[in-house]
Amino acid sequence: MNQTRAIGIDIGGSRLRAALVDTSGTILDRRETATLAQAGPEAVIAQVVDLVAQIAPAAERSSLSGAGVACPGPLDTTRGLALGIPTLAGWSNLPIASMLEAAIGLPVRLENDGIAAAIGEWKFGAGRGMQHLAYITVSTGIGGGVVLDGKPLHGRMGMTGHVGHMTVQRDGALCSCGNRGCWEAYASGTAFARRIGQSSGAMASGTPKSVFAAASDGDGDALALVAEEADWLGIGIANLLHLYSPECVIIGGGISNGFALLEPGIRARILANAMPAFRNVPVVVAGLGENAGLVGAAAILL
Amino acid sequence: MNQTRAIGIDIGGSRLRAALVDTSGTILDRRETATLAQAGPEAVIAQVVDLVAQIAPAAERSSLSGAGVACPGPLDTTRGLALGIPTLAGWSNLPIASMLEAAIGLPVRLENDGIAAAIGEWKFGAGRGMQHLAYITVSTGIGGGVVLDGKPLHGRMGMTGHVGHMTVQRDGALCSCGNRGCWEAYASGTAFARRIGQSSGAMASGTPKSVFAAASDGDGDALALVAEEADWLGIGIANLLHLYSPECVIIGGGISNGFALLEPGIRARILANAMPAFRNVPVVVAGLGENAGLVGAAAILL
Repeated sequence: MNQTRAIGIDIGGSRLRAALVDTSGTILDRRETATLAQAGPEAVIAQVVDLVAQIAPAAERSSLSGAGVACPGPLDTTRGLALGIPTLAGWSNLPIASMLEAAIGLPVRLENDGIAAAIGEWKFGAGRGMQHLAYITVSTGIGGGVVLDGKPLHGRMGMTGHVGHMTVQRDGALCSCGNRGCWEAYASGTAFARRIGQSSGAMASGTPKSVFAAASDGDGDALALVAEEADWLGIGIANLLHLYSPECVIIGGGISNGFALLEPGIRARILANAMPAFRNVPVVVAGLGENAGLVGAAAILL
Repeated sequence: MNQTRAIGIDIGGSRLRAALVDTSGTILDRRETATLAQAGPEAVIAQVVDLVAQIAPAAERSSLSGAGVACPGPLDTTRGLALGIPTLAGWSNLPIASMLEAAIGLPVRLENDGIAAAIGEWKFGAGRGMQHLAYITVSTGIGGGVVLDGKPLHGRMGMTGHVGHMTVQRDGALCSCGNRGCWEAYASGTAFARRIGQSSGAMASGTPKSVFAAASDGDGDALALVAEEADWLGIGIANLLHLYSPECVIIGGGISNGFALLEPGIRARILANAMPAFRNVPVVVAGLGENAGLVGAAAILL
């Protein structure tokens, strides 16, 4: 047996993606659909079966090493369980790994989507060749994954890297998790959009995308909104430097599209908050874009 | 060769300790002195040589596997360097590992004191048998070390676990590191003592120790001060749960002497701030007390 290909599956609350990936990280085939997030686990598993059939007909599957499945947390990946995924109705205490194994006839490894993306960036993206990196995805929420000492971190139940829910302000802004003061409640795309909506002036009807565009054109209101977002990102990133000591922080997710505009503010906050030995760690954009989780999930089997 | 003993050395800003430790973690001999912190590195190295001579005469050293040295950070333990230790005058860009190797004639491994203590607790203390733990020491400052997936974390320059310097309040209280809003600036023994001094009423002339004693007797002012300290500790500990996902958080350092009084407030804050899957992780007192770093440093060589 010389299995040099695996399937990566990324089950998101809005998009469901599957890809056939080889040991070089190359996507040989890729399919995507809208997740039937409200239809219950059986419906989503049927979607997975359908996508996998398109990229790897049953007759070919014995030549694959298996399928890595990236899901939003909380998961217990040591037992292959979805504990209760807020964006997927009915995914509560669900043995998703064994259900998918039965459905697609391949060994399945379940991984938190942030950790899967960190593995993808580490093996094939912006973190290639590194021993230590922290990956964050900044979109609706903030997720993450960490590689230290040459290994992806997992921890109890495989839940290391829930970076969005570290408190950066005691009893602060309400977070989607129900708690207050989480980093996600200040620095996610959702939080950025909320500040945009609450701002005075022409930007109030904008989106992160339109605010980035206006900031590129030098609009003062847009630049101020971008600076505030960058500052909150920098606060959390400086925390990650002290806590994990990565040699690089990699940013993915939709908000990373504005990275060039955010970078000076992120850097300024790192200089203000980080101790000298941590200050010169680079912060870079993800290399694999939205495919990081997909490729990283497959890479677990390669 | 069957080297079943090593030397542990703990170079603190106030106390210098050395011990002979066996593979069971037992301290066979132990010496301690006041660190000549302001006298420069040569003076401290001479102190180390003196302590080591007392516990392991030169003729016996070939039967030892080496010496583990725990120091306050920042260190670059991958290169055996002290980068600039605030509490030890002149310890700046100093190749302390090779200097000590030459001075005591044994292989030396340098380790951040927080990581050394985490290793000690993991191998011989409150974290025995665990795969994942976070250790914090709460005294003048807050330090830490982490074991995940069965291995002590090191990261870039061996600096993982500078937990005291994560921001928990944007532009908040001034920290000893010069930045603002660090966890250490709210939850360390120093911060606790500062709040005691600023309080109104009879407690204002107290110390953490006297406040713990008064709280034990039911004094309302003391209980309120303890509750505030516990709340700040809980905020940072909840962050550690999300970031590392340990199966246990172990608290050492002087403030842990009041753990029984602090525990309810710590637990309440974890319940408020942690996502459900993280809430039932135990928080316990260190098992090795002030010897955690000493024993852990030796354990690196055993």
